[in-house]
Amino acid sequence: MDQPKYVYAFEEGNADMKFLLGGKGANLCEMTGLGLPVPHGFSISTDTSRYFSANNDYPEGFQNQVEENLNKLEEKTGKKLGDDDDPLLVSVRSGAAFSMPGMMDTVLNLGLNDTSVRGLIKQTGNDRFAYDSYRRFIQMFGKVVLKIDGQLFEDAIIDMKKVKGVKQDVDLTAGDLKELVEIFKAIVNNNTDIEFPQDPLEQLDYSIKAVFESWNNKRAKNYRKHYKISDDLGTAVNVQTMVFGNKGETSATGVAFTRDAATGEKVTYGDYLTNAQGEDVVAGIRQTKPILEMGEDFPEAFSDLMTALDTLENHYRDMCDTEFTIEQGQLYMLQTRIGKRTAAAALRIAVDMEKEGLITKEEAVMRIEPDQLDQLLHPRFDPESQIDVMAKGLNASPGAAVGKVVFDADAAEEMGEKGERVILTRWETTPDDLHGMIAAQGILTSHGGKTSHAAVVARGMGKPCVAGCAALNIDVKSHEFSINGFVIKEGDIISINGTTGEVVKGSVPLVAPTPTPELKTILGWADKIRKLGVRANADNPEDASKAREFGAEGIGLARTEHMFLGDRLPIVQKMILGSEEEQAIALVDLLNIQTNDFVGIFSAMSGLPVTIRLLDPPLHEFLPSEEELMVEVVRMEYEEASEGDLKEKKDLLSRVQTMTEANPMLGLRGCRLGIVRPDIYEMQVRAIMEAACDVKAQGKDPRVEIMIPLVALDTELSYLRGITEKECEDVLEKRAMKIEYKIGTMIELPRAAVTADEIAKYADFFSFGTNDLTQTTFGFSRDDVEGKILARYLDRKILKSNPFETLDPAVVKLIDMACTMGRETRPDIKLGICGEHGGDPDSVRACHQIGLTYVSCSPYRVPLARLASAQAVLEEKVNTSISA
Amino acid sequence: MDQPKYVYAFEEGNADMKFLLGGKGANLCEMTGLGLPVPHGFSISTDTSRYFSANNDYPEGFQNQVEENLNKLEEKTGKKLGDDDDPLLVSVRSGAAFSMPGMMDTVLNLGLNDTSVRGLIKQTGNDRFAYDSYRRFIQMFGKVVLKIDGQLFEDAIIDMKKVKGVKQDVDLTAGDLKELVEIFKAIVNNNTDIEFPQDPLEQLDYSIKAVFESWNNKRAKNYRKHYKISDDLGTAVNVQTMVFGNKGETSATGVAFTRDAATGEKVTYGDYLTNAQGEDVVAGIRQTKPILEMGEDFPEAFSDLMTALDTLENHYRDMCDTEFTIEQGQLYMLQTRIGKRTAAAALRIAVDMEKEGLITKEEAVMRIEPDQLDQLLHPRFDPESQIDVMAKGLNASPGAAVGKVVFDADAAEEMGEKGERVILTRWETTPDDLHGMIAAQGILTSHGGKTSHAAVVARGMGKPCVAGCAALNIDVKSHEFSINGFVIKEGDIISINGTTGEVVKGSVPLVAPTPTPELKTILGWADKIRKLGVRANADNPEDASKAREFGAEGIGLARTEHMFLGDRLPIVQKMILGSEEEQAIALVDLLNIQTNDFVGIFSAMSGLPVTIRLLDPPLHEFLPSEEELMVEVVRMEYEEASEGDLKEKKDLLSRVQTMTEANPMLGLRGCRLGIVRPDIYEMQVRAIMEAACDVKAQGKDPRVEIMIPLVALDTELSYLRGITEKECEDVLEKRAMKIEYKIGTMIELPRAAVTADEIAKYADFFSFGTNDLTQTTFGFSRDDVEGKILARYLDRKILKSNPFETLDPAVVKLIDMACTMGRETRPDIKLGICGEHGGDPDSVRACHQIGLTYVSCSPYRVPLARLASAQAVLEEKVNTSISA
Repeated sequence: MDQPKYVYAFEEGNADMKFLLGGKGANLCEMTGLGLPVPHGFSISTDTSRYFSANNDYPEGFQNQVEENLNKLEEKTGKKLGDDDDPLLVSVRSGAAFSMPGMMDTVLNLGLNDTSVRGLIKQTGNDRFAYDSYRRFIQMFGKVVLKIDGQLFEDAIIDMKKVKGVKQDVDLTAGDLKELVEIFKAIVNNNTDIEFPQDPLEQLDYSIKAVFESWNNKRAKNYRKHYKISDDLGTAVNVQTMVFGNKGETSATGVAFTRDAATGEKVTYGDYLTNAQGEDVVAGIRQTKPILEMGEDFPEAFSDLMTALDTLENHYRDMCDTEFTIEQGQLYMLQTRIGKRTAAAALRIAVDMEKEGLITKEEAVMRIEPDQLDQLLHPRFDPESQIDVMAKGLNASPGAAVGKVVFDADAAEEMGEKGERVILTRWETTPDDLHGMIAAQGILTSHGGKTSHAAVVARGMGKPCVAGCAALNIDVKSHEFSINGFVIKEGDIISINGTTGEVVKGSVPLVAPTPTPELKTILGWADKIRKLGVRANADNPEDASKAREFGAEGIGLARTEHMFLGDRLPIVQKMILGSEEEQAIALVDLLNIQTNDFVGIFSAMSGLPVTIRLLDPPLHEFLPSEEELMVEVVRMEYEEASEGDLKEKKDLLSRVQTMTEANPMLGLRGCRLGIVRPDIYEMQVRAIMEAACDVKAQGKDPRVEIMIPLVALDTELSYLRGITEKECEDVLEKRAMKIEYKIGTMIELPRAAVTADEIAKYADFFSFGTNDLTQTTFGFSRDDVEGKILARYLDRKILKSNPFETLDPAVVKLIDMACTMGRETRPDIKLGICGEHGGDPDSVRACHQIGLTYVSCSPYRVPLARLASAQAVLEEKVNTSISA
Repeated sequence: MDQPKYVYAFEEGNADMKFLLGGKGANLCEMTGLGLPVPHGFSISTDTSRYFSANNDYPEGFQNQVEENLNKLEEKTGKKLGDDDDPLLVSVRSGAAFSMPGMMDTVLNLGLNDTSVRGLIKQTGNDRFAYDSYRRFIQMFGKVVLKIDGQLFEDAIIDMKKVKGVKQDVDLTAGDLKELVEIFKAIVNNNTDIEFPQDPLEQLDYSIKAVFESWNNKRAKNYRKHYKISDDLGTAVNVQTMVFGNKGETSATGVAFTRDAATGEKVTYGDYLTNAQGEDVVAGIRQTKPILEMGEDFPEAFSDLMTALDTLENHYRDMCDTEFTIEQGQLYMLQTRIGKRTAAAALRIAVDMEKEGLITKEEAVMRIEPDQLDQLLHPRFDPESQIDVMAKGLNASPGAAVGKVVFDADAAEEMGEKGERVILTRWETTPDDLHGMIAAQGILTSHGGKTSHAAVVARGMGKPCVAGCAALNIDVKSHEFSINGFVIKEGDIISINGTTGEVVKGSVPLVAPTPTPELKTILGWADKIRKLGVRANADNPEDASKAREFGAEGIGLARTEHMFLGDRLPIVQKMILGSEEEQAIALVDLLNIQTNDFVGIFSAMSGLPVTIRLLDPPLHEFLPSEEELMVEVVRMEYEEASEGDLKEKKDLLSRVQTMTEANPMLGLRGCRLGIVRPDIYEMQVRAIMEAACDVKAQGKDPRVEIMIPLVALDTELSYLRGITEKECEDVLEKRAMKIEYKIGTMIELPRAAVTADEIAKYADFFSFGTNDLTQTTFGFSRDDVEGKILARYLDRKILKSNPFETLDPAVVKLIDMACTMGRETRPDIKLGICGEHGGDPDSVRACHQIGLTYVSCSPYRVPLARLASAQAVLEEKVNTSISA
């Protein structure tokens, strides 16, 4: 009987086995296949991890497979586990299908015990190195595998240094370290139920289990939640022969990128540390050297590395990120993966690689994460503004941010949840800080390079980060930091510029960015591929111009309620509460004001369609709140206000009370308002057509689309279409002009979706209002559930993603149904969406699949939508050709 | 070229042509065909009316057809229009497909002019009668056709009586009336653009137009809205030779029913008036005589009438309602139709006719209007109560009602809209009072018999009515009435008993009725026919018992939130706001209380399924309101309350504020609450199972169905199903008992409906919560739209019916979709509805068509649902056989 295969030697796998062997394992296999110098090893499949998660035990036969592979490893390396002559030492590392840097546990130097430490001495002739390795192993094993408080080991080292009268770890002798080994073993024995295991197989067994368990630790779960990685994937475990970058000055360790991950420039990039182990580079604890200086110290290994990087980039046809170790002059490749990069770098690399003939235009388009574009389009410091630069650090992740200083991740999260903007400020970040980084506007660290944890994670999130700002001196106890003579307290506002590395006192005004040439190139290619139109949601001429600059092909949603606020509010309140005469005057005032508003928008969008939505919110939103008025009345009574004033206030209260609604979202708003107060809609339609006439008279080309919100019934729309047409024709006749106009509706209620065939009789276009449609389909009030309920739902996996960010499948189903039915009635009907989902890549993909005419999103999201909709086409081709 | 036929002689039509010739016209044709003595005439089709409504003009060729038919009428009668020897006089009456008593206009004595009045004198030898007829015609024509204020004619009569020194109309001589004719003609000439037309053809043309226009008058529209009659049907016009019941003591007019319309007894029933015209009987102005006394005054005509009634009932196989006139001893049948009847009469007639072999059981079941059953099941006076009978009137429409006295229809409507219960108290009602009758709990009149307007309309509506209460003396100016020495002011409460005719001072306690034997017979037949199960919504043992008595086959919805109110509220508030410890104590208290509640229900329903819904409303509904607390805080500040008290109040306010929701309907309620506060659901499930165990231990048979509300996602249900099963198993294990239980869900959100296949994986049953499903499908908050928006929507025909009363087609579509999808996953899934729609006949029909397992409605509606679901089966058979 064949047993399932759980363990794969590196020779047995390849890069395509990512889901089975994890990213790291599959790439180690691939590099082995390419003939690159990879230390021998094997990968334990994610199947095993899944089995382990479900059963809390290994599958049958698994341990035999591990032992077989260990035997082969001994053959290949000519070393033996636990040997007192030439012992085999291995590392045990997690490696999931998607990179989760630093999230899970790693054990190094496994195989050391009281016997094999002697073998290590024999092989290296370096007893200090051997005992140091041994104590490190016990320490790591104790902490990571046995969950012993790491401080116990640190304290023991401090005590030892005191006893020995030395200051630095490096001043401890081999003898001291040998003593420390015994102390560490005692710590293990005293703090767990077991003795430190001497048997390497037992060590390995404990370690594999620890890696599997680390898949479900809190920070790993948080990370996966943020990056939407399924908990079901599980992790692989890589067991690999140890090589040592800390065997003296002929050894080193480092990371290297085939191109610059920040700018995309075609130049090898990275850091290394002589006589160090890999974790030292990533943790940012010691000052690294740039990779290009490595040629001087390690000419042969450098040349081998350059060859390896070339091989990898040509093989993977993408920028690669590698980890390597030089052991006594010999280069070993320990890891490679497709390198993370900033949006700017992604764009440049894609465009360059297309020029170099390495990839096609389509591949170039697929190489950009739409969400990443957001960082390119993030605001930057206003160049006109006077700034007070306190210090400069590394420009670790581009973009600018302003916020209150906080010193720990929990505080960042807490304040972020309250809607406050914060800058998380740390000596360095660790995976435990992830939730704080998610909540922060930007990250500032005093330690670590551009490949430190803070830098890598921030770039991945598209958040500004200034790292390694050495001038920054944090005093956590006093809740402040000093920086070149400035003292900044927790809660003070600072600004950081991740593009330049500047750290600035106070709040710097931010300005919108302008697209780079590479962005234009990629988006140009995307435009040729995509089928979805892209419009923007904009309510004023400035936003409209910005949208046009970003490539919007029209306005999909101009909300008119914003035009009812500010200094117009008193007029609007008259329109609502005034006498019949006052209402009429207010409507005339608003007609003039709104006409002006629309003139601005139509001018900015001349030649492109502008969809204007008639008033949507309930009228009481424009009135003082009931609660406030009630309190005011009571106060006035106590204050013995004049009877007239009191009566007036009471009257207002009573008017407001009649208008107050139990569930305003489902009350007198949208087209219902248009039916109950047709005078308001008439005024708005008149203003729209007057404006269109004015703009046309200026020689421009207004493209008018009038949208009626919150329709549930075909009869609502037919009634309001009648009113709308009448006003339009009136104005056009009066002005003696001819302007085409369309009248359409929002589909944002389930009833509208399931009766779209009837509604389409009266609609030139549908625009899916996916915010309201999601609210009514779920019976969720976004205001009420997003805080209290959604977080818990996401935690408990009751929801996979926030349906207000990414279109829910059931909502997609309703939209799809509505499109099919709408087209049955009116084959040429224009179909768009104008909810916030229009700027979400997954939702854009769904819109493409449904076959909508366009998506409409915020101006800053227009480039993202252009890219995502092209990718949807390309993905479809791939899927088609696979299924064909 | 054939012209469409617009005009049908009575010989040319039959009863099946109701939609073309109106009910009255078609039945006149049918009676003519049966050889009954019908005055000759013809009907103008509803096609003509529809054409007229659309074009405000007659169709081409119509007038020729009218003239041809007039010529034939002259031939048949041997009389000539406008003749000075033997003039033809006709009546012009509206007649729509569905009876709309008194809603539209009628013109009598048409054909009289200065010439033909002489002919009438010749024929009758009665110049007073002739001139009186002529002045009546001018008066009616002026008022009805030319819209002249009727008071002008009344004033002229009063003036004439003064001039002549007489008191009564009957004291005016032929000469006086001849003078009055001239005065009336002058009134017409002075108040319109035309002179009173002497040409009978012109008179007819004006009158036909007036009838067509009356189709669209306000009261006709109101009537149609109430009875859900389409505005598109249009009305027919019947032109019929006049016969006169007012030609002296040998003439009479009356109405006759083939059986008693109030009790259903097989006895001829009706009223007549000697020397009177038909309107006098219906208007209830003069005291009528019972029909059975007619044999003495008019032996021959009475015998003819009895024969005609027999013929009609055997022919129509139903109780008929007729109008007749005796002109100088000769009987003429002027109208017949299927008679309106009380619910009790409908049941008795149906059961009797089945016994008589006249109709089948299925027909008997179809004969009962489900809505009518409501009146049978209306409360009646509690026989135990002491009542203070002020007077007795006619028992015109059965049932008892309690309410405030109002004297006009507008006030009744206004107070009704505020939710107040009113008794509309009038001398007599007219069609203009309809809106007030709709709004009232009951109707009380001082004039008119059991066939008066008030009585007929009240019976149709199933509202209690006491008519003809002669002791009632209304003083509208003083806003009071006196009755046998009692003085009752407007706004005082009275009670009326329409079954006995009693009028009682103050509020009489009402009790639920017990079903009659005929009801049991019919429902027994219905039960054999229907496929839908019928359950009841009941939250306590009393309602559960009542439901069982009415034939409920289980409880479809037991709401648990009612069990959280009253003296339990303080405990519930502790459960919400208390410290952790207080919450735990409160939960234990509630566990005991709820267990008791459930024991009562399970006992009452032993052997039948009981579906208990876990807590649904948001928790803040159990707390004091935010507004009140805000005001209290301000007051306490001014009153300088102790700091401790103030702080406590402020704390409470702040707790309430965190819980207050913008749209509570769409917030933290239903299963969301169960997920956020699982302790509450756990307590409820435990109480349910403990109760089931207790009841089983008493030897009874509890059938437990636990229902989880407001599910949007399959994952919500799977999570809560897990919690529910765990609690159930815990209890059963602890009690060492075995009880089957089902766990199901409400489908009340569109998302649940369109993903029912996924949800069905975790649901043993679905219960469609059609109230919430309607709210979310429409995006309507019932609280907010029902007052402000729905009335307008119904007025403007934007909605055909209130979707909270009758299932909306789009909601039906979603339910249908959900059932299909649910059955795909789980073919044996139980499907029910438990919204208020379960007691609405149209909605029950829809539920049958969808193929639900059961409907659940209020206990009093259970008989209705049993009947309606049987009718749905029978209708389907008819439809099937027609389409086959």
